[in-house]
Amino acid sequence: MAEKTEDVNSIIFLVIDGVGDLPTPKTPLQAAKKPNIDKLADKGITGLLSPIKRGTVPGSDTSHLRLFGYDPEVFYPGRGPLEALGIGMHLNEGDIAFRANFATVKGGVIIDRRAGRIETGDGKKLEKYLSTRIEDVDIVYKHSVDHRGAVVFRGPGLGEFVSDTDPHATSTSVNKSVALDKTPQSEKAARILNKYTEYCARVLSEAAENKERENSGKLPANILLLRGAGRYRHVPPLDERFGIKGICIAGGALYRGVARYIGMDLVLLPSTEDDKILQERAYAAVKAAKDYDLVFVHVKGCDNAGHDGDFNKKREVIEKIDRLMIPIIAKSGASIIITGDHSTPVSRKEHSAHEVPILIYSKEERYDNVKKFDEISCMDGGLGHIRGKDIMPIMLNILKKSEKYGS
Amino acid sequence: MAEKTEDVNSIIFLVIDGVGDLPTPKTPLQAAKKPNIDKLADKGITGLLSPIKRGTVPGSDTSHLRLFGYDPEVFYPGRGPLEALGIGMHLNEGDIAFRANFATVKGGVIIDRRAGRIETGDGKKLEKYLSTRIEDVDIVYKHSVDHRGAVVFRGPGLGEFVSDTDPHATSTSVNKSVALDKTPQSEKAARILNKYTEYCARVLSEAAENKERENSGKLPANILLLRGAGRYRHVPPLDERFGIKGICIAGGALYRGVARYIGMDLVLLPSTEDDKILQERAYAAVKAAKDYDLVFVHVKGCDNAGHDGDFNKKREVIEKIDRLMIPIIAKSGASIIITGDHSTPVSRKEHSAHEVPILIYSKEERYDNVKKFDEISCMDGGLGHIRGKDIMPIMLNILKKSEKYGS
Repeated sequence: MAEKTEDVNSIIFLVIDGVGDLPTPKTPLQAAKKPNIDKLADKGITGLLSPIKRGTVPGSDTSHLRLFGYDPEVFYPGRGPLEALGIGMHLNEGDIAFRANFATVKGGVIIDRRAGRIETGDGKKLEKYLSTRIEDVDIVYKHSVDHRGAVVFRGPGLGEFVSDTDPHATSTSVNKSVALDKTPQSEKAARILNKYTEYCARVLSEAAENKERENSGKLPANILLLRGAGRYRHVPPLDERFGIKGICIAGGALYRGVARYIGMDLVLLPSTEDDKILQERAYAAVKAAKDYDLVFVHVKGCDNAGHDGDFNKKREVIEKIDRLMIPIIAKSGASIIITGDHSTPVSRKEHSAHEVPILIYSKEERYDNVKKFDEISCMDGGLGHIRGKDIMPIMLNILKKSEKYGS
Repeated sequence: MAEKTEDVNSIIFLVIDGVGDLPTPKTPLQAAKKPNIDKLADKGITGLLSPIKRGTVPGSDTSHLRLFGYDPEVFYPGRGPLEALGIGMHLNEGDIAFRANFATVKGGVIIDRRAGRIETGDGKKLEKYLSTRIEDVDIVYKHSVDHRGAVVFRGPGLGEFVSDTDPHATSTSVNKSVALDKTPQSEKAARILNKYTEYCARVLSEAAENKERENSGKLPANILLLRGAGRYRHVPPLDERFGIKGICIAGGALYRGVARYIGMDLVLLPSTEDDKILQERAYAAVKAAKDYDLVFVHVKGCDNAGHDGDFNKKREVIEKIDRLMIPIIAKSGASIIITGDHSTPVSRKEHSAHEVPILIYSKEERYDNVKKFDEISCMDGGLGHIRGKDIMPIMLNILKKSEKYGS
């Protein structure tokens, strides 16, 4: 039903992170001026999506895996490996990976979990101190942005069920990691992690860069806090499981990591989401749609605004997507899917289990009578209430890549 | 809510094969004049059905099994046994059955997969050559219509996981069958199948009927190609599983085969679908509804039109069903269910995963606000989005044959 001049047999899949909300009295989607998205809703088919299942609050990681056909019960490796992949680290089968962040300790107490909001460049300078070998385990740190990075443990007999050293709070000491499953493998990983934390404290407190920071009145980045341990394993990529080629256009490390994990290629544009970058993402999507079956485009701003409880900001991000991205994408000739990975209601400042609206605009799908893309309008949508697990089969049907069941 | 003079406590279940479609800009159901079906939709309750599950492309065999309460994951025997049953063959537990078709080979190469469109009567004359015994396996061929038939292997230690000898193409040689699961049982079946193929080639090339064909300028039916191997096993019939008696009024062998497989009786009317036969099917359904709980009526024409990409033909078949069958069936006093086993969009010429509309007209069901039976109108239906597995429980509830869960 889509009016296109030059069709390409591919899908541009736009995830507006955290887009779902509660009406207060309007939701940000209802309040936003978004004529271009609504035009797609009018001509396409809509519905409501529970990324995991009804009433389950999705994490961003599990939700994206599920949307792309990977059951998190089977394929979720923990957050660490996804973040490590997302910042470009190479992982081998069995590596244990963590998220890491610089913090400031004073007298054994954490006084700032972001090391005085250390800048990316300053963090990068400290990277060189933080790769080492403890016992028979090689450890690699890679810095990403701000105070963030990832750590990989590579060695024999390591378990992944270890607690965080990051206490997720200030005015407390760094946690000792313990083996959560009491196996010798996790005991070993926890022991290495505790030794590594001591190692980091020592080398960081001696680092010239931190002395300079203190001399100029800044907080030193004198500890590295680790969390989100997970074991990397190779999973069969999209191509092997579904016969499709995917590519990811996202700023955040996690989304890039999920994409790499399941065998998508990446378009590396800046992580910021100013007007120019949003437009560049849209142009990159149109270009990629010529060569890939599935083009995953991610925008983070709505989720950030939701976490900040900022209604107007969330509405504005939706309006920017509508104004800057949709007109470009709509001309691609590709099928278009727009949805979110979960709701992040402004009133809650955190993820919730409320369904997210979804729209599909494709000549390989039907249309319905819904004319607007928001949480309330899409209740009447022709897709009904679907789950994350339905998405990949629906996409394969659009792409004519489904295998017939029976004969 | 149904206006009936003399109610019978039964269901006429009309499957319009392949009826679902995509809007271009209308679907065949939307374009068709079908006042009688729409009247049932207006008075009844509607919805959208995924015969297997969302996004899964159903085969006709798996879909019909699922609609009648037989999970294909448990009960699907492969296509061969269903076809063999459908053409009236007797099957014993453990028999391996195949679909078969006459073809023409020349110099070891298949030049026509339908043996010059051999007529039913000519194929029937060759039947006598094709039953034999190889090693300790009895082999029976039975002819059905045109170039088609079925073959049954009966003997000890036979496996069903064997590849087709039919290459599903011309300008190539006949395939050697191999054991797909490498078991001795399938190895044996593949060996017998290859010997049987050689046997068929020999007796068919020597057959007087084929010499006559060649003398009169026709292609000889000098090879039999086999495909769709499956193992027959007795499954508990409808009566035993659900306490209902079923009967099938279908032309195609597959549908009759599914019906026999699950213990339905058959009404044997011609396979063609001209006006008179369609009316006879309707009258037969009304008659059967007096003695059976479930009367399965099948019409194939829409699926054929879909596979041919013929929009007008598909629309016409719907109009014929509406004009010739529905007025008769609507007076039966039975509950009426109308749906399809899958979509066969004209634009795709093959099955797709798009949901099919369903309507239920019964005083044992509610009504909704939908007034027309088509893919778009039924999005608003009171049944919502249901799956094949929901159908038998819904029918048992209508028939008041459900068992209470708990007390």
